[in-house]
Amino acid sequence: MDARTRKILQRIDELARISEEPDQLTRTFGSSAMRRANYLVAQWMNEAGLKTGTDAIGNVIGRPRATWPGRKTLLLGSHLDTVRNAGKFDGPLGVILAIAAVEEFSREDLPLPFDVAVIGFADEEGVRYQTTYLGSGVMAGTFDLKDLERRDAAGISLRDAIRAFGGDPENLSSAEWPRTNLIGYLEAHIEQGPVLEENNLAVGMVTTISGQSRLQIRFLGRAGHAGTTPMHLRADALCAAAEFILAVEARARKTFCLVATVGRIQVEPGAGNVIPGAATLTLDVRHQEYSLRVAAVAFLHRAAREISRRRHVKVEWQLVQQAASVPCSAPLSALLAAAVKKHQPRCLALASGAGHDAAVMTAIAPTAMLFIRCKKGLSHHPAESVKPGDVRVALDVMVDFIRQLAQQHE
Amino acid sequence: MDARTRKILQRIDELARISEEPDQLTRTFGSSAMRRANYLVAQWMNEAGLKTGTDAIGNVIGRPRATWPGRKTLLLGSHLDTVRNAGKFDGPLGVILAIAAVEEFSREDLPLPFDVAVIGFADEEGVRYQTTYLGSGVMAGTFDLKDLERRDAAGISLRDAIRAFGGDPENLSSAEWPRTNLIGYLEAHIEQGPVLEENNLAVGMVTTISGQSRLQIRFLGRAGHAGTTPMHLRADALCAAAEFILAVEARARKTFCLVATVGRIQVEPGAGNVIPGAATLTLDVRHQEYSLRVAAVAFLHRAAREISRRRHVKVEWQLVQQAASVPCSAPLSALLAAAVKKHQPRCLALASGAGHDAAVMTAIAPTAMLFIRCKKGLSHHPAESVKPGDVRVALDVMVDFIRQLAQQHE
Repeated sequence: MDARTRKILQRIDELARISEEPDQLTRTFGSSAMRRANYLVAQWMNEAGLKTGTDAIGNVIGRPRATWPGRKTLLLGSHLDTVRNAGKFDGPLGVILAIAAVEEFSREDLPLPFDVAVIGFADEEGVRYQTTYLGSGVMAGTFDLKDLERRDAAGISLRDAIRAFGGDPENLSSAEWPRTNLIGYLEAHIEQGPVLEENNLAVGMVTTISGQSRLQIRFLGRAGHAGTTPMHLRADALCAAAEFILAVEARARKTFCLVATVGRIQVEPGAGNVIPGAATLTLDVRHQEYSLRVAAVAFLHRAAREISRRRHVKVEWQLVQQAASVPCSAPLSALLAAAVKKHQPRCLALASGAGHDAAVMTAIAPTAMLFIRCKKGLSHHPAESVKPGDVRVALDVMVDFIRQLAQQHE
Repeated sequence: MDARTRKILQRIDELARISEEPDQLTRTFGSSAMRRANYLVAQWMNEAGLKTGTDAIGNVIGRPRATWPGRKTLLLGSHLDTVRNAGKFDGPLGVILAIAAVEEFSREDLPLPFDVAVIGFADEEGVRYQTTYLGSGVMAGTFDLKDLERRDAAGISLRDAIRAFGGDPENLSSAEWPRTNLIGYLEAHIEQGPVLEENNLAVGMVTTISGQSRLQIRFLGRAGHAGTTPMHLRADALCAAAEFILAVEARARKTFCLVATVGRIQVEPGAGNVIPGAATLTLDVRHQEYSLRVAAVAFLHRAAREISRRRHVKVEWQLVQQAASVPCSAPLSALLAAAVKKHQPRCLALASGAGHDAAVMTAIAPTAMLFIRCKKGLSHHPAESVKPGDVRVALDVMVDFIRQLAQQHE
């Protein structure tokens, strides 16, 4: 392992020790663990030659010590908060890689035709306030001020949490990054899926952050005694749900890159000797192309109605949430692909099925995203793992990307 | 409505007002509600010319005031306890009908060549001690003394509950009814299923109390991110379970009178955006014929293994409980069928998918069971409902059954 990779992985471990829970990694918005993480990351930013500060929501930002009027900025970053009982790479790896990339240029004293700034976002996972992208949302100006009244499990409002952390809830707009100043935003992140591993590739380029439809579906049949109700007189809600679950799977398998998941199911009354009278399930459908996702949801709605008609049960269909697909910037992605190809045989272009700060940052900047292979696609889990060699490739790709971008802007 | 039917239904209502909970009918073993119910039922038994007593477990028993050595007994009865938030017919209807039938003979002063005794069993539902048939089990000598150490939700042992109720836990064998004394046991009970209603019949004859296999099945796949894991790289435990649930339904539909039910399912981790890594479900299979039930369970075990192999998930298969089928007595059932046919166009012979005291009483007596139509097959629910005309038919059938049995024994 070379020194740079070792340093990155040591920092990953150091950050992973900063947790609000004793035996597992949990670092939520506004916690004292977050404060210590910001402090540590700021130190590393300083070492990389950046001056540091924290904005009104609590994002930690490292910028060049000197700049001059009219000079534009390339932003690099990811988030520093985690889910509960998290792995150590999801988020921090992107921030630490960004700092390492900046360090390359400051060590070699390479002049760039733009500033490079690094962001550690304060909240992407949304664990504490059940709303994601607090950090990038404020920076991109898409944050909804109504969310300041949200309360965490202890009853503390987001407004008070921001203030307690040292932020300024009354002046969040001060944290908005001027759109005209930005060349772009580049985020490196673990894939959180198995595709790169399946293709035996260290890194990949994200084309789009997939749109998502989240639904709740309820089949209503008729409860009855499991011993005394003959099969032909039943209206079993769980059997209807089972048929639907298989229809979801079959439909997703048919469309390239479509994913559709029933992750929860609840049956009522839920006793071993009672025929299910109701079954409620969640449906999560994602695809990078709007039309294909919407067509799949419509198809599944028809399928649910057909099943319910045939089985004499009712179906309730409720759209809970929708998020549009967010495409990455074509020119930046082309640069990124070229950089990737210098370090591995091919550049796999893939959609991100998970959301990322990059999706929010498209509101103010062209974005590019680099995915890094993770073991078995496992994420949001302590066993999250990335190979040192892949970290090295990612760093090299980021440095090359910046170099090529510099050539374009000279 | 004739006077006898009205009296039966008034008594049903009177008993239904005796509850341990204010706004719903709940009467569990050993409760003060049970004491009041026993007292009321004993009064009705007295009015019917019987002398009454309570045995060592708390069953209320009405016998002829006079008898003579060597004279045998026909037992009539059902249970007086209920489930939580019960209907008013499940159990009490059989006891009240039995008293009404005895009243017919004592009013007409018809001499019978055997004694007729009436039992109100103290516990059939098993709500308080999670073990069914306490009353009939003690009377039939099948009660397991180890169960005396069971504790209810408040920590009170069954032993203490029996003592507090006025029973004698150290001398339960005194409540065993001598097998040599019995001609038979006849129980009238609501069907708790929709078959009689479907066939437009007031009553039906039970051939067998079906055997039952209860299983727990667990499919173990691989959890993963719903957005980042392509369909072909998933091992979704819920999809495997869904396929199995449909296999259960299809198999049961193929075999006449087989019922098979998945009443509970639990998915882990159970989040809308996570592919299910595990799905645990219950399976309840019932049929009057042992070989058909066992063959169905074996078929479903093979199906589960086939599904798990094909889907690269694991399956765990656990038999939780088995109960053998209990056939009713052929000669008594023939008499009962003849009596039924005097009061409706045909006698439908059906298996009971639910368990009854009659199944336990077969240990000491030939048994027969009369099912009474209930609205929509609904039971264990406040909306449980029986037509007055059907109650009348049931009473007439019971009286005719006893008359014909008397002719045989003259």
